[in-house]
Parts: sequence; structure tokens; C-alpha cells
Amino acid sequence: MSDPLFQAALAEVAAAVEAELPRLLPQPAGHTAKLDHAMAYACLGGGKRLRPLLTVAGADLFGVARAQSLRAAAALEMLHCYSLVHDDLPCMDDDDLRRGRPTVHKAFDEATAVLAGDGLQAQAFAVLADPATHPEPAVRVELVAGLAAAAGPRGMVGGQAIDLLAEELAGQGKTLDMAEIGHLQALKTGALIGFAAEAGAILGGAAMAERQALRSYADAIGLAFQIADDILDHEGDAAMLGKRVGKDAAAGKATFVGLLGLDGARARAAALTSAAQQHLAALKGDTGVLHGLAAFVITRRS
Amino acid sequence: MSDPLFQAALAEVAAAVEAELPRLLPQPAGHTAKLDHAMAYACLGGGKRLRPLLTVAGADLFGVARAQSLRAAAALEMLHCYSLVHDDLPCMDDDDLRRGRPTVHKAFDEATAVLAGDGLQAQAFAVLADPATHPEPAVRVELVAGLAAAAGPRGMVGGQAIDLLAEELAGQGKTLDMAEIGHLQALKTGALIGFAAEAGAILGGAAMAERQALRSYADAIGLAFQIADDILDHEGDAAMLGKRVGKDAAAGKATFVGLLGLDGARARAAALTSAAQQHLAALKGDTGVLHGLAAFVITRRS
Repeated sequence: MSDPLFQAALAEVAAAVEAELPRLLPQPAGHTAKLDHAMAYACLGGGKRLRPLLTVAGADLFGVARAQSLRAAAALEMLHCYSLVHDDLPCMDDDDLRRGRPTVHKAFDEATAVLAGDGLQAQAFAVLADPATHPEPAVRVELVAGLAAAAGPRGMVGGQAIDLLAEELAGQGKTLDMAEIGHLQALKTGALIGFAAEAGAILGGAAMAERQALRSYADAIGLAFQIADDILDHEGDAAMLGKRVGKDAAAGKATFVGLLGLDGARARAAALTSAAQQHLAALKGDTGVLHGLAAFVITRRS
Repeated sequence: MSDPLFQAALAEVAAAVEAELPRLLPQPAGHTAKLDHAMAYACLGGGKRLRPLLTVAGADLFGVARAQSLRAAAALEMLHCYSLVHDDLPCMDDDDLRRGRPTVHKAFDEATAVLAGDGLQAQAFAVLADPATHPEPAVRVELVAGLAAAAGPRGMVGGQAIDLLAEELAGQGKTLDMAEIGHLQALKTGALIGFAAEAGAILGGAAMAERQALRSYADAIGLAFQIADDILDHEGDAAMLGKRVGKDAAAGKATFVGLLGLDGARARAAALTSAAQQHLAALKGDTGVLHGLAAFVITRRS
């Protein structure tokens, strides 16, 4: 189950992104120091960094310099981390713990958490728009457009809104059906995961067919990742995950495990992983790391 | 005091932006309808639309098509409106009323208000990155970079963080001095107002000297606007303003009126308005509307 090539790549990219992020975040200074610290706290010290790996491994296929792909990867990670900060707020999921540490509104305060998330979103776009990310304005603006679509009301934020609705419906004893929960996840987590891989192809000036293959690959593992998350939430333990478990099912929300059963969910995740790996066949270059990532998504224990 | 040329331009641009915004916002549909409605509610039905006028009147100087400048203006207005939604949250200013209507978290709920603000920020970048805003990728990405800087931790969000600090200090009986409160306002409201005018010059491919003149003009009226706001907050009435008055002074926060006295604040605002109008002398073309806007900023009653 442990793929040494993939594990080495994940560790390498995680370390490189951890080093890149502080260079791209505001240096804590003066009267904004608390905000600056909160933004760094939200981004640093944890996370699997799967999105950065998707961007970097995707970009590697097209010979993109790491100096560029790591910037894009860090920008996407900022966007992802902002969404976690806001998702953890008392008016949202009300979580005290994230990656085994106090959430931002617990470590700082609620107002600072709102602003830190807001600032991270702006900073993600600032990084993508910076010439250091790619010399061609057309490439940079395509990255911006892609991230804005993935993050916006028909992407991640839309998915979070459907998640709120699902919770409201659960209170009335209703649940989403399989198509609806698939749509929710495609927006809430799928859009950014799909774009993370596509961003590598955009940086590399890939042909549309290759870009589409990478996108389809990532869309499939995005959904597999979410199904695996439900399985972990169903059977995992809090110490390993660094967050509360069983909360979705306890809240009466529809989960893939609830809809498909545990075996059905496992089978669906495995089928998506196979589909993802088949999309890689359309790509030239060494896709070993991306193959390993697809397998990891459903075998991970946290 | 009422400048007919300026008033007509303001009314025209306000109506045009009010018509443009719904075309650029997600159409309420399906499971995201509540979020979509909240985003529209946050943007529509009010506001002076001074930022859009800055962008459009600035762009007019360089012969930019209104179809383009109105898109950029609408994007900046989305960014501004998102900041108001988050600013009104219970953990921030905790305001129930905005422009005489219930704030977004009152009309909808707190979680939806967080997401609506987040979605508006993403959508603002999506609109700027769209080829319909300008055919040149280099222009679009410059707009994106400018907005990201104006909105981020060294712009608007940074200013909001200093505002939180000011409130904390007020609780300890300390207040910011004149330089500090000037810095706060330069970030919190000045950055976006300055960029609103600059965006018109960027769209028009203006020479750097013209772009800088427009920026300096807008920086001056941005600060004058804020001083006028403090004066209105000191002496205005809630019905006219559509929001609570006297709250900053009541919270013990430093205000320009508190630091300079009422007459001193009025004199400072008038001097800034003159300075703004002098910057316009560096520009060719008809700057009548921008002259009128500078005068309006300190004579407005709401």
C-alpha cells in the first residue's frame, strides 16, 4: 500500500510548499501583525498538501520550473486553507480542532479568523497574478480565471452553501440523494482539486486534450477522496484524523457511507481510482507519482 | 453645492452598475439559490456607487468603452460589498442595519453571510479575468493584481485588522494617533478607492504619469471621504445615513473629529479636496465629473 515513489514526492512537495508559503505571505509587522500571524498559522504546520502535489506533479509532466509550479501550488493551498478557516467558524461547522491544533478562531479570535480567511483569498490571487508565477500574462490570467471559478459560487463556495442546506434538510428528517451529494462534493471539494491538477497543465502550456485528461483524473480522485473521507469519518479515530469524527452522520447529513453502505462506498471509491488512473494513459511523461496519488487517496488512514 | 454635471454622472453610473451587477452575479438556481440571493442582496439596492463612478469616469478620460469599464466597476463594487457583509457580522461590527435595510446576516443567516462575502470576492476576480472586461490578457492580469493588493493583508483587510486593534486599545483607554489612524484609513478604505480610479487608467492604457495622477487624486478623496464620514458620524442622523451613528466615538475609538476637533477635521477634508482637484490638472480630457466628485465627498449629507 505504501508507494515509495509517491511518498517521497509527497514529502518533497509538502516541504517545498511549507518553505514557499512564508515567502508569499505578509511578514508579520506593525499593527497588522496579529492578522499576519493568523494567516500564517492557517497555512503552515500541517495538511497533507495533496493539492500542491497535484499542481506540481501535473506541471512536472510539461517541464515547468519548480519555482513557478510551487508558487501556483502555494496559492491554491492558501485558497484551500482560507476555506478551512471559514468552515471552522462557530456559525459554520463550529470546530475547535483542525489538524490536531486549535482552529484559527480559537487560537486568535473570531473576527481575526474572518479577516485571515479573507486575506488569504486575496493573497492567492495576488500570487497567481504576479509575473514571478509565469512570464506570460495570458497564462497568469487563465490561472486567475480558473481559481476564481473553482472558488466561487459555482464552485467551492456554492458547495458549502449546499452543505448548509443539507444540514437544514437533515433537521427536517430529509437527506440529499446520491446525485445531489455528488453535486455537493463536486463543488465543495472537487472544483479546487480538479483545478489544482489543471493548473499544472496551464502553466505548462499543455494541449487541450492533455489538460482535459489531467482534469478528469483529478475530478475522479476528488470524488474518491471525499468518499474515503466519509469512510474515515465513519470508522476513523479522532487522534489519527486530528478532528472530530462521526459528526456528519451524527448531524443526520447524507454521507456516501449512509447512501451506499460501507462496502458500496469502498467499491465506488476503488472504481473512481481506476478511472482516474485510466485518464493518465492519455498523458506522455512519467505519471508514476499521479498513479501513486490516486491509490493513496483511498488507502490513507487519515 | 449640488453640481448638476456630477449628479447626472453619478445617477447614470449608479443605474448602469445596478443593471450590470445582476448580469455578472450567479443567477439564483437550484440548491445554491439562497447563497445566490444573498450575494445579489449584498450588492443591489443601494449604495452611492462612488467607486464605480471613479472607475468609469477615470476610464472615460482615455476613451474606454463603457461595456468594459462598467464590468471593472461592478467587480470593484462586488469586492466593496463583500467587505461590508463581513464587516457587519456579529463578530465584527455587529450591525443589524445597512443602507436602511437588514444586513445580510440578519436577512439571511450568519453562515450564508460569510459565504456570500467569500463568493463575492471570488466573483470579483472572475469578472476582471474574463476576456469581456478587456481583450488584452496583460491588462486583465494587471487589474487582478491591483485588486488583490488593494483587497489583501496590506490593503483593505489589513486596515480592518488595525481597526480591530484600535477597538482593543480603546478598551484599555488608549487611542491611535493621527498618523496611525491615517494609515488605518489608507488601508481600510483608501486602497480600494485609490485602485478604483487607477483601474480606469489601466483599462485605458494610460501613461504612468496620468495613472499616477488619477491614483493621487483618488487617494486624497479617499481620505477626505473618511474624514467626512467621521464628521457625519459625529453630527449626522441615523435615518439619513441608514445606519447607527456615533458608534465609533461611543466605542472609544480614535476618530478624525476626536483628534482634530470638528473644525480641524472640516479644514483637513477641504484641503484634501483641493489637493485632489490639483492632481486632475495633470490629466487631459474633461475632468469635470471627477472635480465634482471631489467636492461632493465633503459636502454630502449621507
